[in-house]
Amino acid sequence: MDVQLTLGELLDRAVRLFPDREIVTKQPDGDRHRYTYGEAGARINQLAHALDELGVESGERVATVALNHYRHFELYFAPPCSGRSIHMCNMRLPDEHFQYIINDAADRVVFVDPAFIEKIEANADAFETVEQYVVLADDVPKTSLSPVVAYEDLIEGQPTEYDWPAIDESDECGTCYTSGTTGKPKGVSYSHRGVYLHSMMSGHTDTNGISQRDTVLPVVPMFHANGWGVPYAATFVGAKQVLPGVHTDPGPVAELIDDEGVTMSAAVPTIWLEMAEYLDDNPDVDISNIDRLTVGGAAPPESLIRRYDEEYDAPIIQGWGMTETSPLGTMSTLRKELEDRDPEERYAYRAKAGIPVPGFRTRIIDDDDEEVPADDETMGELTVRAPWVADTYHDRPSANRESFTEDGWLRTGDIATHDEQGYIDIVDRTKDVIKSGGEWISSVELENELMAHDAVTEATVIAVAHEKWQERPLACVVTGEHEVTADELRDHLGERFPDWWLPDEFEFLDEIPRTSTGKFDKMALRERLDDATVDTKP
Amino acid sequence: MDVQLTLGELLDRAVRLFPDREIVTKQPDGDRHRYTYGEAGARINQLAHALDELGVESGERVATVALNHYRHFELYFAPPCSGRSIHMCNMRLPDEHFQYIINDAADRVVFVDPAFIEKIEANADAFETVEQYVVLADDVPKTSLSPVVAYEDLIEGQPTEYDWPAIDESDECGTCYTSGTTGKPKGVSYSHRGVYLHSMMSGHTDTNGISQRDTVLPVVPMFHANGWGVPYAATFVGAKQVLPGVHTDPGPVAELIDDEGVTMSAAVPTIWLEMAEYLDDNPDVDISNIDRLTVGGAAPPESLIRRYDEEYDAPIIQGWGMTETSPLGTMSTLRKELEDRDPEERYAYRAKAGIPVPGFRTRIIDDDDEEVPADDETMGELTVRAPWVADTYHDRPSANRESFTEDGWLRTGDIATHDEQGYIDIVDRTKDVIKSGGEWISSVELENELMAHDAVTEATVIAVAHEKWQERPLACVVTGEHEVTADELRDHLGERFPDWWLPDEFEFLDEIPRTSTGKFDKMALRERLDDATVDTKP
Repeated sequence: MDVQLTLGELLDRAVRLFPDREIVTKQPDGDRHRYTYGEAGARINQLAHALDELGVESGERVATVALNHYRHFELYFAPPCSGRSIHMCNMRLPDEHFQYIINDAADRVVFVDPAFIEKIEANADAFETVEQYVVLADDVPKTSLSPVVAYEDLIEGQPTEYDWPAIDESDECGTCYTSGTTGKPKGVSYSHRGVYLHSMMSGHTDTNGISQRDTVLPVVPMFHANGWGVPYAATFVGAKQVLPGVHTDPGPVAELIDDEGVTMSAAVPTIWLEMAEYLDDNPDVDISNIDRLTVGGAAPPESLIRRYDEEYDAPIIQGWGMTETSPLGTMSTLRKELEDRDPEERYAYRAKAGIPVPGFRTRIIDDDDEEVPADDETMGELTVRAPWVADTYHDRPSANRESFTEDGWLRTGDIATHDEQGYIDIVDRTKDVIKSGGEWISSVELENELMAHDAVTEATVIAVAHEKWQERPLACVVTGEHEVTADELRDHLGERFPDWWLPDEFEFLDEIPRTSTGKFDKMALRERLDDATVDTKP
Repeated sequence: MDVQLTLGELLDRAVRLFPDREIVTKQPDGDRHRYTYGEAGARINQLAHALDELGVESGERVATVALNHYRHFELYFAPPCSGRSIHMCNMRLPDEHFQYIINDAADRVVFVDPAFIEKIEANADAFETVEQYVVLADDVPKTSLSPVVAYEDLIEGQPTEYDWPAIDESDECGTCYTSGTTGKPKGVSYSHRGVYLHSMMSGHTDTNGISQRDTVLPVVPMFHANGWGVPYAATFVGAKQVLPGVHTDPGPVAELIDDEGVTMSAAVPTIWLEMAEYLDDNPDVDISNIDRLTVGGAAPPESLIRRYDEEYDAPIIQGWGMTETSPLGTMSTLRKELEDRDPEERYAYRAKAGIPVPGFRTRIIDDDDEEVPADDETMGELTVRAPWVADTYHDRPSANRESFTEDGWLRTGDIATHDEQGYIDIVDRTKDVIKSGGEWISSVELENELMAHDAVTEATVIAVAHEKWQERPLACVVTGEHEVTADELRDHLGERFPDWWLPDEFEFLDEIPRTSTGKFDKMALRERLDDATVDTKP
């Protein structure tokens, strides 16, 4: 049967089969908003009618500048199901980039949380296509934006039924921009087909396994790559959803987990690191509902995985992905063969990026585009292919030439190894790997080992130019209240790595600069330390 | 990305990520053949080369007349991945129908198990398109078939690599014929896309949840609707597969479950009923590896589900589907809301056909094509729609007109109710429902209640013509060694059903005739009892 794979199929299933399941939002004032898929479905229909009235045409985009809450959830469906597209914006982008993405996407309407109105006001003059602002609230606060309307006023009185148009599965349902560390953000289109398949895959037993039995809490922002697909996958199966809004600190998240019976949550490692410390200080808080935690955005330290197993019986499963991949590509579920291995070995596998999920192909290639051996050692660039991977960036021919192979695989820019069990280990970014004397040194591995030292709280390793060896590693460390010398750290690294891997210089900093997505900003560091002199030892 | 959803994606994943996982076959002589996905992949490539040499063109079909074993598994992939199609034949069809399906499918090659050579010999003269016979064995036994070759000779020496062609996902990968109780079998096409999506769905946590951790044993024949999709879904995730060949009696199946660590198995209810009796007599046999059992083809009695829970901690999950639906459409997984209900209620839900799986839509309609209320009572015809549901029968315009609604839904021919939790209950076949005085009587519900009587081992209820009421129910029962009278059975039914539902006549038979797929053959019974006189009581 010619049944198109569209987001309408996901929503329709939730509304028909799970009309009474809840979507709970912690609002800015701390109160919880509760409603059901049935009620959400009616409001999504109202929103679609409102988009009709605003004159947003089929194929056009609306922007959201919003955290995780029920109105953003409605925007995940109304535009795409009615033939438009949702552009999820990262409000932490620098103004110049923020203006660029709104203009590049040609957004017609901007839906904005009250908390981010100032950001919009500061940039509105530069928006070229925006005709309407909608504040995601009951009322419009004092603002210079115009024309502006409150979301509730926008949809009030609209019919709660909508006759959805036929949608082609290849149509865009959403768009996100990658906040690269260099150059302008690049726009990625998601198709209905891609998100449908990603959602089906996210319920697969060998991946996130999101099920009708789950209560999910995406801490990951909904403006990051479809909230890692959690809101869509949860809707497909009718899972209860808990949306934390602005309350993403460990205390409020733990409270939501406890109160709402959350079984699955997804976030960057930092959140779970902070959560563990919070739980140590608050032994009365109970997160035992948790069945599993999905971690992405950066590799979780092995020690964190171990801690959640031992203290909370909450397995951390690492997922790897990127904006271009919808995002899920690999997951570090433990293969059956490895279940009987000793704990050290099991944790080493689980700390890797994982094995490709069903439907996702990977190929790690060297400079000659040949696949590198699965020896857990040889590095190459990870290239990927799947129905939910973007095949182009919006209007960026040179980025497209660089980022895709001739036979249509995405070059991820990640340097990886793979082993005979099929596990992929991300050892660096192509831009961060240190090329010393024709050999590659993984900055990530050095960083992890530095952070495993008791005295080090943060560490990042960058390449600095070197006359003889082309590049050499330089380590930037934050030690907090502990004291440690460069020699001690070099000795620590020397226990695991060959001499020529060891950084020649150590910079002791008060803090490491971060990008808008919270990652260490190596570009800023490189600029700051550009003229760092390196005494050659090798 | 334009990644076509094809069977090559499934196979490639197993061969790349799970090359050492086993596929175990119990051979006719009782020995077990063991090999891996890696080895299977190489032989599949050899078979594809052999098909090239035989001159089977792209888009053409080859027939299999075979049980569940590794060579049949290879045929599940080599024809479709190389652009052809596999026609899985039910060798239990009457000769006339068997000849019809081979000719209708225009099969070029027939792959046949040694056990079924006689069936082929008896029909070969009537085959219009077959040019080659291949015996699925090391050697060709004495046979009148010509030209004929042994499977092992066919593939021996062929290259173990094959350059797979690009396949469009809408291309046919396989075909099956429905063995209807009336008329000629109807041919159903499966597309690569449909089987890919069905396989992804079959790994979903809310369905069969087939995972890399599983060892699966499909007792359901591979010639029935893709073996209910088990071999394909298992390959997608790299699960170990155990194929029982001719050894589908309880003893050998239990032994395989025990020895091979089978975690998931799929079969009709009869198998598990017989298995329970076998286990009672053989307390040393251990099936505790089993994590869940999928049951389809007919509704399992509630008592069977209860028994497997209590005695073997092996939940029976009912699935509903048909040849036209690939086949999985609904599954009776217990909704979270119902987990705390009392056992009686839980078992009542689990004995229903279940809720639609993700991606599958259902609509139960009355004679005016209006959806019937979800009141667990009002009957209507179940109509369905999904990317893995056939939208046509081969060259059967009148069947197509009857079987599909104007807006493209399949009329299943099943009479069903649905309830407010979304569970569908199949209460009858459109052809079997008894229309008495303008009201409908469910033959299935009467049968189930009769079979719940201690004295009754088998029961079926058919409609007989009646002057005043149009149709009235007539019950055919097999009582085995127990004695019971018609009045006693009528009283038994009277405890649950209204007077006008109670059969007017009871026929006590030695056995109930069965169709080629093992179901009660109501058509044969109707013919035999055509002139049964019915004393009117109502």
